[in-house]
Amino acid sequence: MTDTDGVKMSLDALADMSRTILTRHGLAPAHIEAVTRTIVAGERDGCASHGAYRLLVCINTLKTGKVVRDAEPRVAEPAPALARVDAGGGFAQLAFERGLPLLVQKARANGIAALAINHCVHFAALWPEIEALTEQGLVAFACTPSHAWVAPAGGTRPIFGTNPIAFGWPRADSPPFIFDFATSAVARGEIELHRRAGKAIPEGWGVDADGHPSTDPQAVLQGAMLTFGGHKGSALAAMVELLAGPLIGDLTSAESIALDAGAGSSPIGGEFVLAIDPAGFLGAEAAAHIARAEALFTGITDQGARLPSQRRYDARARSMRDGVVLPRALYDDLQALLA
Amino acid sequence: MTDTDGVKMSLDALADMSRTILTRHGLAPAHIEAVTRTIVAGERDGCASHGAYRLLVCINTLKTGKVVRDAEPRVAEPAPALARVDAGGGFAQLAFERGLPLLVQKARANGIAALAINHCVHFAALWPEIEALTEQGLVAFACTPSHAWVAPAGGTRPIFGTNPIAFGWPRADSPPFIFDFATSAVARGEIELHRRAGKAIPEGWGVDADGHPSTDPQAVLQGAMLTFGGHKGSALAAMVELLAGPLIGDLTSAESIALDAGAGSSPIGGEFVLAIDPAGFLGAEAAAHIARAEALFTGITDQGARLPSQRRYDARARSMRDGVVLPRALYDDLQALLA
Repeated sequence: MTDTDGVKMSLDALADMSRTILTRHGLAPAHIEAVTRTIVAGERDGCASHGAYRLLVCINTLKTGKVVRDAEPRVAEPAPALARVDAGGGFAQLAFERGLPLLVQKARANGIAALAINHCVHFAALWPEIEALTEQGLVAFACTPSHAWVAPAGGTRPIFGTNPIAFGWPRADSPPFIFDFATSAVARGEIELHRRAGKAIPEGWGVDADGHPSTDPQAVLQGAMLTFGGHKGSALAAMVELLAGPLIGDLTSAESIALDAGAGSSPIGGEFVLAIDPAGFLGAEAAAHIARAEALFTGITDQGARLPSQRRYDARARSMRDGVVLPRALYDDLQALLA
Repeated sequence: MTDTDGVKMSLDALADMSRTILTRHGLAPAHIEAVTRTIVAGERDGCASHGAYRLLVCINTLKTGKVVRDAEPRVAEPAPALARVDAGGGFAQLAFERGLPLLVQKARANGIAALAINHCVHFAALWPEIEALTEQGLVAFACTPSHAWVAPAGGTRPIFGTNPIAFGWPRADSPPFIFDFATSAVARGEIELHRRAGKAIPEGWGVDADGHPSTDPQAVLQGAMLTFGGHKGSALAAMVELLAGPLIGDLTSAESIALDAGAGSSPIGGEFVLAIDPAGFLGAEAAAHIARAEALFTGITDQGARLPSQRRYDARARSMRDGVVLPRALYDDLQALLA
């Protein structure tokens, strides 16, 4: 099972390790299952920064006391096409699972619907939530602020979170078309992985505390990250703040990091999720038009370009067959959580 | 009124010139008013590529016979939170105006609603539509494909349109927060303006017909433009194709340019518009949370960064006071349309 470079594990073994660690640190059983599902899914899909590594982040947040370990999500219906889940200060995963059936039902009944998750602690990727909706045949969009770590285009001080945007489109005979990316130049987890590995980061990822461009991961973590795509990425980051912040009565990234007050917990606030039923606009013709989208995907892949989640689906196929390999240092850090 | 560099006009005079030109070329009166409003708004706001210049594009499309000059938009209600306007092959502006009241009503009744405009010819910016929604106190999002002019990240052949995305957020004491940008590295109109001016374009805007990077605007117009922000911009461009194409039963950019068959008309297809009522999630607390968003905007502007539409609002204030100045060559081209 073990070699010098890494530790090979089955997905079931990883899930068991996750449960054991989370139990040891006092998370309630329903949350343990929901969190473990996203941790294992991330590692399975080759997302190093959102896989087993996030257990360290999660335990750190538990230690800060900034997350409610046994929060019971409460679902509400503020408007005919809107659903809302008060996560009660717990992790977002269970709140999403509890709100999902109502969101699906409302999207089917009205053609479109949105779900707000409020008062949650968020540390996961968004694509697991998107996949839960594409599995129901729905088109999906989600976004969430984080902590204020990212400067706006033309500025040098953090105001935005890494503010991911995710979108999904169901496909009949293939895994869904899904993208999920930070509006920062990279995910903060990537910079943290560089710091752990002692490697410099590329230019364009961030500036130091004085606002000067830097390739030192530690300096950028203490300064400000930059958005992708200049003023366009910056505009999208602002949209995420607004949609998943004030629009749903929840915190901006600046308010989240102020609340954290240096404790180093995961971001606290809200998430905005949108679901659209293709049958809403198209009725019985929906399947034919959804199928027509396949020509778009073929037009992309036929010229040697890749669809957004292809690498993830390839990793998934490998992991389902062969299991995953955790870096030795990460494995040791996780084992230390059981000491 | 006239000097060697440009021709100064009042906004009313520009509107009259637009009406005269469009009348001469056979557009129906209701369309003339709707089209003139966006042309004048574009020039007023300093958007050179979406102002008076677009009259040339519009007349060219009329000459191709690809637009229905007297189309009568038909409004439908496919689902409780969805509205649909069949533009009947006419320009998009009038179709949007006809669908707007139903979209607003549905957003207020359900918390969120979407509008599909189908079978329209599209040549304008999206922010006029976004402003019409923020004026009603609604949060708004819109997107539309165009002609397949843009290669996906990792590819070299056109498959996406320039596929703009626009978003708006109402503000109590300021013009709304609005962004509206092409998911291509630049708007195609920018490349056309460089070609008209005989200027090279920056690297990164496009490739020639052989897939090689080029700074020759003509070569890129005949080759492929590139998306902004690498694979992230490419993913967003695909989202626009899907939302405003197959999801609403309308054309992708590849299908639009195939239908054009070299005639050189503006893109034909659909537009997707989303409206969210802040009172939906928040009820009576909406105003307080909307006001809280002001801290985000202040956090951006206080560090010397600009909000997305600020330049446009500044130009608007100048134009309302002083009128606009059309480049001499453009003015002459427009006058030639009256010959």
